[in-house]
Amino acid sequence: MEWATISGKNRIGGRESSLGPGGHMAFNPIEHEAMEPVFTVATSAEIEKACSLAWDVFYSDVFGWAERANLLDKIAENIEAIGDPLLERAHAETALPLARLTGERGRTCAQLRMFATAIRNGEVGQETHITADPDRQPMPRPELRRRLYPIGPVAVFGASNFPLAFSVAGGDTASAFAAGCPVVVKAHPAHPGTSELVARAIDEAIKALGLPPGLFSIVFGGAEVAAELVQHRFIKAVGFTGSKGAGRALFDLASRRPNPIPVFAEMGSVNPIFVLPGALQEREEALAAGYVQSLTMGVGQFCTNPGVLIVPDDAAGDQLVEHIEQALMNIEPSPMLTSEMAMRYEEGVSKLRHNLAIQPRFAPDGSSDGLVRPALFQAALSDAIESLEAALNAKADAIHSDFLEEIFGPAGLVLRASSVEQMLKFAKLLPGQLTATVQSAKDGENGLESLVSTLSRAVGRIVLNGFPTGVEVNAAMHHGGPYPASTDARFTSVGTAAIDRFLRPVAFQSIPDSMIP
Amino acid sequence: MEWATISGKNRIGGRESSLGPGGHMAFNPIEHEAMEPVFTVATSAEIEKACSLAWDVFYSDVFGWAERANLLDKIAENIEAIGDPLLERAHAETALPLARLTGERGRTCAQLRMFATAIRNGEVGQETHITADPDRQPMPRPELRRRLYPIGPVAVFGASNFPLAFSVAGGDTASAFAAGCPVVVKAHPAHPGTSELVARAIDEAIKALGLPPGLFSIVFGGAEVAAELVQHRFIKAVGFTGSKGAGRALFDLASRRPNPIPVFAEMGSVNPIFVLPGALQEREEALAAGYVQSLTMGVGQFCTNPGVLIVPDDAAGDQLVEHIEQALMNIEPSPMLTSEMAMRYEEGVSKLRHNLAIQPRFAPDGSSDGLVRPALFQAALSDAIESLEAALNAKADAIHSDFLEEIFGPAGLVLRASSVEQMLKFAKLLPGQLTATVQSAKDGENGLESLVSTLSRAVGRIVLNGFPTGVEVNAAMHHGGPYPASTDARFTSVGTAAIDRFLRPVAFQSIPDSMIP
Repeated sequence: MEWATISGKNRIGGRESSLGPGGHMAFNPIEHEAMEPVFTVATSAEIEKACSLAWDVFYSDVFGWAERANLLDKIAENIEAIGDPLLERAHAETALPLARLTGERGRTCAQLRMFATAIRNGEVGQETHITADPDRQPMPRPELRRRLYPIGPVAVFGASNFPLAFSVAGGDTASAFAAGCPVVVKAHPAHPGTSELVARAIDEAIKALGLPPGLFSIVFGGAEVAAELVQHRFIKAVGFTGSKGAGRALFDLASRRPNPIPVFAEMGSVNPIFVLPGALQEREEALAAGYVQSLTMGVGQFCTNPGVLIVPDDAAGDQLVEHIEQALMNIEPSPMLTSEMAMRYEEGVSKLRHNLAIQPRFAPDGSSDGLVRPALFQAALSDAIESLEAALNAKADAIHSDFLEEIFGPAGLVLRASSVEQMLKFAKLLPGQLTATVQSAKDGENGLESLVSTLSRAVGRIVLNGFPTGVEVNAAMHHGGPYPASTDARFTSVGTAAIDRFLRPVAFQSIPDSMIP
Repeated sequence: MEWATISGKNRIGGRESSLGPGGHMAFNPIEHEAMEPVFTVATSAEIEKACSLAWDVFYSDVFGWAERANLLDKIAENIEAIGDPLLERAHAETALPLARLTGERGRTCAQLRMFATAIRNGEVGQETHITADPDRQPMPRPELRRRLYPIGPVAVFGASNFPLAFSVAGGDTASAFAAGCPVVVKAHPAHPGTSELVARAIDEAIKALGLPPGLFSIVFGGAEVAAELVQHRFIKAVGFTGSKGAGRALFDLASRRPNPIPVFAEMGSVNPIFVLPGALQEREEALAAGYVQSLTMGVGQFCTNPGVLIVPDDAAGDQLVEHIEQALMNIEPSPMLTSEMAMRYEEGVSKLRHNLAIQPRFAPDGSSDGLVRPALFQAALSDAIESLEAALNAKADAIHSDFLEEIFGPAGLVLRASSVEQMLKFAKLLPGQLTATVQSAKDGENGLESLVSTLSRAVGRIVLNGFPTGVEVNAAMHHGGPYPASTDARFTSVGTAAIDRFLRPVAFQSIPDSMIP
């Protein structure tokens, strides 16, 4: 496509803009070299312009349900139209394999189209209607219609680990557009070129449909640009996927505004897998293989990566851990998304290595050239319980424990359980998680139902006899969870329900249908 | 009822508790005297106990949908069973007329029963189910069921202006119970006796149904007790109705927790009424009468009180203001809920009186004996627009303007508009409101649709040719609105949708229906 070029400039309401002096370049984590061009960091004036344009569009009446569905479809079409150059740039910027990126592009476009279909099928934004009753005593009942309207301009933050599916035209942008909200994206600095290409696909879609260009802007920059965007008076909600530190920082800025706004930050978790004794008896080798695959898939760079595995402390459990360890040893060193991430992964592994209550099983020393290897640690579940209980008894709100600290990457911690009762005790102490998984004998076994019930208090999704990686995109998905998994457990960032984050109800009292916007 | 006594003690999981040294008494705003008994301020130990009991109940499996519906019904029955002593105590504590309190009790019980019916009819907590597809390529699709679960123990804050409908067993508690959440209420200090009576009705209902007593506790105290409760590690959400200052303080505490929790604070607004020229021509006298009734109903102590009236600046408009002024002069001085509120009302009126851009029309000097009189002011809409534009141009997030400051009580500000276009301009600048009302000619008129459309961006409910006071309780109601009307525009505190505030989804992947809690 002739429009699919990379200029390194912010795009404010469809127009290139580069008022700022400096910028940053993308970095190829395999070749270890910076890539052209320089991306201009957005200035305050550019952010102001992007948000003002979005505000004006928000007050216009041109972005109804039909236009939203058409836009989503057209964006998907345009992303596909870019073709291989998009995948190649994404591969160069993230080191993610082309096959994976092809799949991710498919998911991104399928998601956009699914949201469009959900709108056309009337699954989004349903009306609640109560008719008038002039004879009601002691007062007549007025007619009421409750409909869902866009919350206002949304700031979207691209995620490093999904350069397509959770970035410029990913789940947050798709949700915001589906809800009728103008969007201002801050591109993730790790894949700015991919971001610009997708941003151009969005701008072209807006142009092709004759919609106002202020519906969408993209800005480049770091934490300062992020902070300015989240605090802008015209931004009314935030979508974010990433680390706990960055997510919490955005949440704090948004909550401390004179006019606070909602932030949906999906911040990941350790996604524990509970292996019940019957499962171990039935399929120990399959469990080892499945766990290793889930832990190391995409170099462990998924928010649903199963960082913690709870295994009975018996001979069968020993066997499982042994098999996992052997399989991990055979895995080749791989590049992470950025060299900074590889460094942080090594730091996390090193922290576990220095914890006296935790034994390294397979924890090879540091990476070379940004390539990392999987790691496996082991500890007693009783020690993890003790650390959680200590926090609880100290009346600490944030139940912090080194045993449950997420390490972004392919590092696993096996916690050895003396009994199913001990697993249940641990489950009741568990802080918020995106997912938890239970492995049980195929026909069920003692403790399974109690475990599922207990976990339902602290977890967004519970998987039986499967693995948490691989998040389905549909209306029944819930990808979220109590803090610190996300900043609002009532919402999901995956699936059509993600649209609800950016809709708000308005009740119309005694107003004829024809007059309601 | 033999259990309907007032002891002045906290009730922790159904048991009286008074570990603290001091306390406060209720004050009769008509008789100007303190009322027995002394209410013991809750200690940290009592708050800890209440929250711990709630936490244990949250992790039990005994409070399913059927039990919730039964509990809501039983609470309504028990509140009615208290009979006149409840109304008499409420009247003595709040000065609200018995007829009003009788109506409010009816509303409270109807609301509890409506929530029970909604549960039994399956209108709450619907499942989303996607079946498995083992043949899907490239990967089989797992079965997913998304169901709604309680968010955890909820802290509820009683409101001063609705001692029954928005207090101990009011909308927040009803919503939390309907969602399956244990509740810890902090009673409003202005009506502690009423609060204790209703708390006993709840405890008796829990006992009668054999549910765990830890489902409900009530504590007495002031800002310190409130702060401790909102920050308690076992409290997972907050429901509040009251002033902007108090609501924001709770929101800030909750947002700054190590593990932030959602706060739904409904904080009121000025609820502007736009009078279009055609309406004025058609029914000027009826508009004056309707406005005066809405403004002074309940001594103006409603969050939907119409504090701002936008009126064309012409002879017909003069006539309307004249009629409103005359009607207000004839209204007898009345007691507010508390003498502190009467004082704050006088302060608010005095502030308008000293604003050079605002002319007093009828603004009698100070109250005597805590009795207050209505007040009416007038200003140019252009001045209000100017103050809002100045804030916007200064890039201020909180669009503050003296013209839009809520005065809790029967004070109205008339803003005179030079044209319908000017009204539209004002509507686009309006900060978040619970409601806005448009008065138009019966057959519609120029500007009506644009006004409704523009207002839909900033308002929770739009009323046509009616008045905002009198909030229907049903599934189509939305009682909320963008900040500062509430802290989360996506939720309502009135109607069955209020239950959603305290539910969170959990997705069950490949888990048979029979095994899902």
